[in-house]
Amino acid sequence: MGYSVAILGATGAVGEEFIRLLDERNFAADSLRLLASARSKGRKLSFKGADITVEELGHHSFEGVDLVLSSASATISSEYVPLAIKAGAVVVDNTACYRMDPKAPLVVPEVNPEKIQDHEGVIANPNCSTIIMALPLYPLHRAFGVKRVYVATYQAASGAGRRAMEELEQESRAVLDGRDFTRTVIPHRYAFNLFIHNSDLLADEYAGYVKEEWKMIVETRKIFDEPNFRVNAMCVRVPVLRAHSEALNIEFERDVSPEQAYAVLEEAPGVQILEDRAANRWPMPIDASGKDPVYVGRIRRDVSQPNTLDLWVVGDQIRKGAALNAVQIAERL
Amino acid sequence: MGYSVAILGATGAVGEEFIRLLDERNFAADSLRLLASARSKGRKLSFKGADITVEELGHHSFEGVDLVLSSASATISSEYVPLAIKAGAVVVDNTACYRMDPKAPLVVPEVNPEKIQDHEGVIANPNCSTIIMALPLYPLHRAFGVKRVYVATYQAASGAGRRAMEELEQESRAVLDGRDFTRTVIPHRYAFNLFIHNSDLLADEYAGYVKEEWKMIVETRKIFDEPNFRVNAMCVRVPVLRAHSEALNIEFERDVSPEQAYAVLEEAPGVQILEDRAANRWPMPIDASGKDPVYVGRIRRDVSQPNTLDLWVVGDQIRKGAALNAVQIAERL
Repeated sequence: MGYSVAILGATGAVGEEFIRLLDERNFAADSLRLLASARSKGRKLSFKGADITVEELGHHSFEGVDLVLSSASATISSEYVPLAIKAGAVVVDNTACYRMDPKAPLVVPEVNPEKIQDHEGVIANPNCSTIIMALPLYPLHRAFGVKRVYVATYQAASGAGRRAMEELEQESRAVLDGRDFTRTVIPHRYAFNLFIHNSDLLADEYAGYVKEEWKMIVETRKIFDEPNFRVNAMCVRVPVLRAHSEALNIEFERDVSPEQAYAVLEEAPGVQILEDRAANRWPMPIDASGKDPVYVGRIRRDVSQPNTLDLWVVGDQIRKGAALNAVQIAERL
Repeated sequence: MGYSVAILGATGAVGEEFIRLLDERNFAADSLRLLASARSKGRKLSFKGADITVEELGHHSFEGVDLVLSSASATISSEYVPLAIKAGAVVVDNTACYRMDPKAPLVVPEVNPEKIQDHEGVIANPNCSTIIMALPLYPLHRAFGVKRVYVATYQAASGAGRRAMEELEQESRAVLDGRDFTRTVIPHRYAFNLFIHNSDLLADEYAGYVKEEWKMIVETRKIFDEPNFRVNAMCVRVPVLRAHSEALNIEFERDVSPEQAYAVLEEAPGVQILEDRAANRWPMPIDASGKDPVYVGRIRRDVSQPNTLDLWVVGDQIRKGAALNAVQIAERL
């Protein structure tokens, strides 16, 4: 007896990754319903060798559905997730809609799996940059006590969706050819350029922060269940296709050697150490693309401050940063 | 009465920028000699409307030369700079060869111009990432006292030279076309990818640091004339063509408001504030490419730590990061 599953936002980059992961991981899905906007209605996507026709999302899309994997937009989630819950489904939502809702658990299965059971119909999947940072940071925090973290991100086009990835490729070709190019997805030139993450600029306590940075801060606090956890983030989009990189500067409560940190991360679930010091070789986005683990390396003592280590982290934004984390939550349900 | 000037490494990205700047800034050059390797011998480059033929660098290239602007390689500098000095020239050297030599001044004209006069024949031009950081950091340090800085860099292909810029474009085209590509300059895939700066990995006190990061640390200390200045750097090459970006997290000795920091940087030489908060628009590499100022913006309070500000800095690596700084030194000679 398997489950009836629906994917909301099935034709997006994360939506297609949901389909791939349900197949790869032999998820106990008896039926799969693919939901998207009118634009994608009628498209056929393959699941376990069979073609499934994409349906237009509607108010009655969730009848008989046990589990919804949702990754359309926060606006779509705010309208349709309550309908799915009302129809009896449990929703794992990969938008920002429910992440900071006190009634919704915000879960990284390697960090706080026990929260999954506390749901009232919806479990929120954290922001991709947050998940990728949390995987190595949490075991280090558990082992040694983190006093403060500063993270600078190098975020890929996939974080802005499939059309942003396509636009980066198209614009790169136009720049190489010396042609003009009209952008429709990304607000700034992206080819051979970079820019501060184009999410909303905040005010008051977070004056000068953009929403993406705020997410990394407040979501990490919620996932770690430490409302005063000290973390600061600088988020930048770089012209990379699909894996995010993060430079972490971590101050601990006490002295921690790189060897001690490596030992903890060797045992950390979802984390893989990838480096070759003799070859001066460290994790890169192309290493992580399409892969499940978050790759870490380059742990070293910060020469400017005691009790502080540097760490370099790279993870696939679509996979562990989004779809894989959500499917792992669903598996534990 | 003008000077007899020679450019060593005249056909490189920085060398050609030297020629452009001597022209643009009406440098008092009566004659210009262009020196390069045998490969470039006979090429003609334009200066003030006249063609100058590139000469092959040799042991007698510096006879009658007053000033050498040098940007070939540290190996070339170690062999030829002593010959130039012996021939009576003063050398502004843009390689790593003399930067940490206690007898050679290391100069950013906006920071420590008084050191220029202390030379014994050679004045060293700092690393590009160091110069770009120093321009906004030094006036803030003078005004408020910096306790510690962490910098994460987003470095362009130009830092590895003209052929690296060309290779990034060629490889990007190959990736877009789905063709194989054989790299000859950059050791890792660069198109739509990024990697830790590919300079030598260090050991002992700087275990885990690469040479570029060490340069940013020790050169900043020398330029500021503060051997214990606390700075840490994480250097990353991103697929951008010619301007470096840097995320600075600056802890001060006391509370400093963003308004106070903006006021200091508005007056800082070589620095230009570029931001539009209403449009959520901050400095980008394409803003800085080919421009003289180092652009800064996005000053905000760090929510994770008192007395700490974030700052975003973008500067043209070839121009202020290399050629312009060297020409400014020469002008003050």
